[in-house]
Amino acid sequence: MVARTVDLRSDTVTKPTETMRAAMATAEVDDDILGADPTAFRLESEVAKITGKEAGLFVSSGTMGNLISVLVHCDIRGSEVILGDNSHIHIYENGGISTIGGVHPRPVKNNEDGTMDIDSIEVAIRDPRGELVFPTTKLICLENSHANSGGRCLSAEYTDRVGELAKKHGLKLHIDGARIFNASVALGVPVQRLVQAADSVSVCLSKGLGAPVGSVIVGSKSFITKARRLRKTLGGGMRQVGFICAAAFVALKENVEKLDGDHKKAKELAEGLNQIKGLKVDIAAVETNIIYVDIVEGSKITAEKLYKNLEEQGVLVMPKGLSRMRIVLHHQISSSDVHYTLSCFQQAFSGMHQENGSYSISTSRDVSYS
Amino acid sequence: MVARTVDLRSDTVTKPTETMRAAMATAEVDDDILGADPTAFRLESEVAKITGKEAGLFVSSGTMGNLISVLVHCDIRGSEVILGDNSHIHIYENGGISTIGGVHPRPVKNNEDGTMDIDSIEVAIRDPRGELVFPTTKLICLENSHANSGGRCLSAEYTDRVGELAKKHGLKLHIDGARIFNASVALGVPVQRLVQAADSVSVCLSKGLGAPVGSVIVGSKSFITKARRLRKTLGGGMRQVGFICAAAFVALKENVEKLDGDHKKAKELAEGLNQIKGLKVDIAAVETNIIYVDIVEGSKITAEKLYKNLEEQGVLVMPKGLSRMRIVLHHQISSSDVHYTLSCFQQAFSGMHQENGSYSISTSRDVSYS
Amino acid sequence: MVARTVDLRSDTVTKPTETMRAAMATAEVDDDILGADPTAFRLESEVAKITGKEAGLFVSSGTMGNLISVLVHCDIRGSEVILGDNSHIHIYENGGISTIGGVHPRPVKNNEDGTMDIDSIEVAIRDPRGELVFPTTKLICLENSHANSGGRCLSAEYTDRVGELAKKHGLKLHIDGARIFNASVALGVPVQRLVQAADSVSVCLSKGLGAPVGSVIVGSKSFITKARRLRKTLGGGMRQVGFICAAAFVALKENVEKLDGDHKKAKELAEGLNQIKGLKVDIAAVETNIIYVDIVEGSKITAEKLYKNLEEQGVLVMPKGLSRMRIVLHHQISSSDVHYTLSCFQQAFSGMHQENGSYSISTSRDVSYS
Amino acid sequence: MVARTVDLRSDTVTKPTETMRAAMATAEVDDDILGADPTAFRLESEVAKITGKEAGLFVSSGTMGNLISVLVHCDIRGSEVILGDNSHIHIYENGGISTIGGVHPRPVKNNEDGTMDIDSIEVAIRDPRGELVFPTTKLICLENSHANSGGRCLSAEYTDRVGELAKKHGLKLHIDGARIFNASVALGVPVQRLVQAADSVSVCLSKGLGAPVGSVIVGSKSFITKARRLRKTLGGGMRQVGFICAAAFVALKENVEKLDGDHKKAKELAEGLNQIKGLKVDIAAVETNIIYVDIVEGSKITAEKLYKNLEEQGVLVMPKGLSRMRIVLHHQISSSDVHYTLSCFQQAFSGMHQENGSYSISTSRDVSYS
Repeated sequence: MVARTVDLRSDTVTKPTETMRAAMATAEVDDDILGADPTAFRLESEVAKITGKEAGLFVSSGTMGNLISVLVHCDIRGSEVILGDNSHIHIYENGGISTIGGVHPRPVKNNEDGTMDIDSIEVAIRDPRGELVFPTTKLICLENSHANSGGRCLSAEYTDRVGELAKKHGLKLHIDGARIFNASVALGVPVQRLVQAADSVSVCLSKGLGAPVGSVIVGSKSFITKARRLRKTLGGGMRQVGFICAAAFVALKENVEKLDGDHKKAKELAEGLNQIKGLKVDIAAVETNIIYVDIVEGSKITAEKLYKNLEEQGVLVMPKGLSRMRIVLHHQISSSDVHYTLSCFQQAFSGMHQENGSYSISTSRDVSYS
Repeated sequence: MVARTVDLRSDTVTKPTETMRAAMATAEVDDDILGADPTAFRLESEVAKITGKEAGLFVSSGTMGNLISVLVHCDIRGSEVILGDNSHIHIYENGGISTIGGVHPRPVKNNEDGTMDIDSIEVAIRDPRGELVFPTTKLICLENSHANSGGRCLSAEYTDRVGELAKKHGLKLHIDGARIFNASVALGVPVQRLVQAADSVSVCLSKGLGAPVGSVIVGSKSFITKARRLRKTLGGGMRQVGFICAAAFVALKENVEKLDGDHKKAKELAEGLNQIKGLKVDIAAVETNIIYVDIVEGSKITAEKLYKNLEEQGVLVMPKGLSRMRIVLHHQISSSDVHYTLSCFQQAFSGMHQENGSYSISTSRDVSYS
Repeated sequence: MVARTVDLRSDTVTKPTETMRAAMATAEVDDDILGADPTAFRLESEVAKITGKEAGLFVSSGTMGNLISVLVHCDIRGSEVILGDNSHIHIYENGGISTIGGVHPRPVKNNEDGTMDIDSIEVAIRDPRGELVFPTTKLICLENSHANSGGRCLSAEYTDRVGELAKKHGLKLHIDGARIFNASVALGVPVQRLVQAADSVSVCLSKGLGAPVGSVIVGSKSFITKARRLRKTLGGGMRQVGFICAAAFVALKENVEKLDGDHKKAKELAEGLNQIKGLKVDIAAVETNIIYVDIVEGSKITAEKLYKNLEEQGVLVMPKGLSRMRIVLHHQISSSDVHYTLSCFQQAFSGMHQENGSYSISTSRDVSYS
Repeated sequence: MVARTVDLRSDTVTKPTETMRAAMATAEVDDDILGADPTAFRLESEVAKITGKEAGLFVSSGTMGNLISVLVHCDIRGSEVILGDNSHIHIYENGGISTIGGVHPRPVKNNEDGTMDIDSIEVAIRDPRGELVFPTTKLICLENSHANSGGRCLSAEYTDRVGELAKKHGLKLHIDGARIFNASVALGVPVQRLVQAADSVSVCLSKGLGAPVGSVIVGSKSFITKARRLRKTLGGGMRQVGFICAAAFVALKENVEKLDGDHKKAKELAEGLNQIKGLKVDIAAVETNIIYVDIVEGSKITAEKLYKNLEEQGVLVMPKGLSRMRIVLHHQISSSDVHYTLSCFQQAFSGMHQENGSYSISTSRDVSYS
């Protein structure tokens, strides 16, 4: 048993704060299926305002937010969506847009910074008046910040260009904004500006912002009307949902300002790790709260031994493939945790720990964290 | 503005109790996507135990519970489900099993008591080795108590017979147990016995039991494993979901014993209404907490005026078609509320109220309450 | 081995005539995926003209015709179709509209004459601006003549009334006209008049008309444009399809006039069978080329023995359930065949045949004939 | 009007031969929905034999063959297929596997030779016991020869390696063999050997082999049983389909031996074109009957003018993007046609033709030929 746990696997593991608990205990609630829950409405309005969109809808997860958004934009049989081949929607959402929604994905290569080349997007668009054998492109999806690229941020300018392309071809633009607040803080650009070109955004409140549950999708009123119906179809409508929304509202009010600290700690940890012989971090790529660490070939410790050593010290990281790991900072990781983590890594590489032969950890190539 | 509100539209409109709020404020929670939330696990285990099944899974609504259950049993393309033509799944769940799940429904006539004739079910079954033009029947669905039949209960014996039929043909049996506790209390038969023949049950905690949010589906371990994955696909997986489960656990512990009182109040109200000239209630059909009231043809008050009069007095009921209304009792309706309601009806029919010309209410044929 | 075969199972079993073979051998063809096949175009135009619609599209079967038509009208996720609970689409087309198309069927009771009550249809319509839990009704389907009702015909007036209802609610009307020419001939009303109210019709050429393969769907130009794309999606587009269309064109030109004879032979056979003690036919219901024959309870011969006796004499009929059979007349059944068939039935009931113990026939409740 | 037409757009434009017409006129046919058509059976058996598989099924197009094959292998909701990002199934089949079948595609980069890196395939496989957020990989698809790579051939050894990978992970392997005979002839390896590792193959008879209509899919008996049912669901079952199969049988018997000539003519034409200043052909890539020709940047004639000039001379080619064209040889293109084509190109580049100002051709980026 370990004395201390530093859970760096994801920013979804945050525990709700006392303020959130108090907000839940006193929340005013009503039947939201009837559109009557005032606390849900307050949260939805707030996120709509922050993102500069007409209306919002609370959903139980980022996956549901993306699923509903894609399906509303692609409501006609035969629709196709252009999205990054390394995007969360394509890789980590069960293929739900196809397996549940019958939407055909047309993945375009994600660059290392999370963008897709504008030209590549344009070539992939299928003209709705086009050939008999083509599905009809209806939507382009971006992800900001881009998780699988190490949390890198899409600029407002890039997003605008994609938005112009979408408009030119009569397409919609959806942004998976699971960590849009991280992007906003890192870029120093308001969320509203970052998503200005988007027809819909899915904003997660239970990642870096630390809410126990939930995302809000935003868009036009007619988009939200359709989304509400589809949420019901999925069974995602909840009765007195205001409890959950109350906690999420606190997350929105109290935790955005903590993100900058997360980013700084990420940078500090990344730099420390990069100085360890046997590890390699692309420091410039650490723009927000996510670090990708590569174990250099020929390192004197295997990935498996490293994870074991770390886990014995209570430090949890997420394996991504055989020689890469993902580390995610969040507001419940202190500076002290960062220093402790760094020392655990250093010890592992300096070989000071004895091994425990019976120990075993998963070597699966990837895991389901968001 | 009305001084008093008696909301009889549905048992979903209950407000969480103080005990539930307290339970939420202190709940122990963790990331349930990782299967780590102890409060979710406790609730799921409890419902599994009560229903006599191996395992349970918390879902955000009865609709999601039914959707997942049907889709897990009908996981192969070309599956067909036999269900009541007046069942909640067929009528009030957006056709989601088809529009999201691609499952073909084969509705069989619901009798007035919510049953389907066993022979009619058998005739509808399509042999899996059968004709080239048939989908393959995989599942039979029952609903207990049966909402659209006025909350009437299916006996254990009837359910067993359907279960035997299912087994004989290699089919699964799912029970939509949105109000299975009402059936259990009314019949004096344990829930476990009522669902003994079922492969899965969807149990709602936010109807008569008064939880703010949620249902639990139960079945075999392998059923629940598949259900968990499908819940993620739908976006229904929630992170620190234990808060909601804590409230639902209270509902389960404290409110089952209140259902008998709801049924008695329903009977009392039904009898009172039936004595009003111009109204007609099938008293024998009021087995649980639901009353269907018909406005007799030639009545001196129209349905529209009646609803208006009632609403002016704060009494809310649910129109079902042009001359029928639904009334649902729940633990937040007191005896005094029942008497008040009765007097409002009596006044409406004795014509003592003056009318307000500008008043208008919806005359849509049906509404979305569960 | 039998000396003579009278195949009364369906009108799909007709063999192509010499004229059809000659037409195929000399047909002018081109790549129809490019819309360049002149023979396909000629057939499509001809059926469009006969039905009074703007355009037509050749498809490989009635099932494909109905599937494409329903899916084009129900192109938006969440669509519902109202159709007869005893209709070919609901019962004999693999549930494809749901399992392939994600359309939710709302079956309404078919009367004995193949109609659905207008009131029942209207009650089943879900208002597109309606409740959150409803799918959206987009389409009503009729079937004329109605196979499972014994080939009975829907009048132009009835169809018009359904069309008016559809229009009133903003819905489309599709007619499964697998045997619309039979209905036209029996009613003495032109096809065009019978389908006047319909937005689309699926016309089969390989049933009573005797073409080897194919149906044509008709509707507005924009309907056919969408249908053509969907046909490609299903893989139903064919290159030099003119060969098949050439044969179908002959069927259309030469065989419509033969249908009246089929109906007369059906009537004659029905009357003969009804005089056999042990059989019962509703003579008035034999309006076209289909006869349903019931084996009276307590008959001295079982259905199984009867089928065996008939089959030994080369007379093939189609069992429909345990004590009913279907008999279908077509242009390759002569008057002599009718008399022979009648005598085989008479012999079977007079017990003149010896039995063959090893003989076995299928006792499945239903089979896949159209 | 042009005196001579040389249609090089695709090998689907071939016209049926006299032998094919004769075969159709005399074909023995029966109702194939009942599995009774002897000519269909003969063709299906022959293709099964040639490919070394247990059974075959005639389908109306390559698209239907691929759609059915993918859907049979991916019969469970939540299935994923790994396929080339430049494959026919992904690009030119309407996204039908998703939009009709709900299968999630996971495209892997196609190399210039039509292969996908074995390592890239393996990384893309999602373990069926894997993470909650992954769909389940069920199938890998190859295409041989690979159309969008210019008709290049996959070796038996490469295919075997993919087959071993599939087996190792419990996956199925499907080969889109639209032009598998071209690959066989070019490689000098029997078809049976090329598809040895495959669980199913879709073999097209209406491309280079010149049949008017149709493909045959082959696989195990149980695969074909499921495929037959799905074909019915799609409406692809046809009654007296033997006519079409008779022509396809002739194609199989008479035209395989003509493919080598097509390949030689392709090589000759490619070399000739490559010598024209302003055009560039990767001669080594011309392995079968397809040529990709690039118009070199700075060429003195634009693509648009070139197509116009060619079309005025009756030479039809297929634009692929703005500066590339596709040319496909087939048995109805003679050596004389090749020389004529070459001279038309030469003339276009030597500027001998006058221009016609009003002339206009499509500049769409791509067209629907197979």
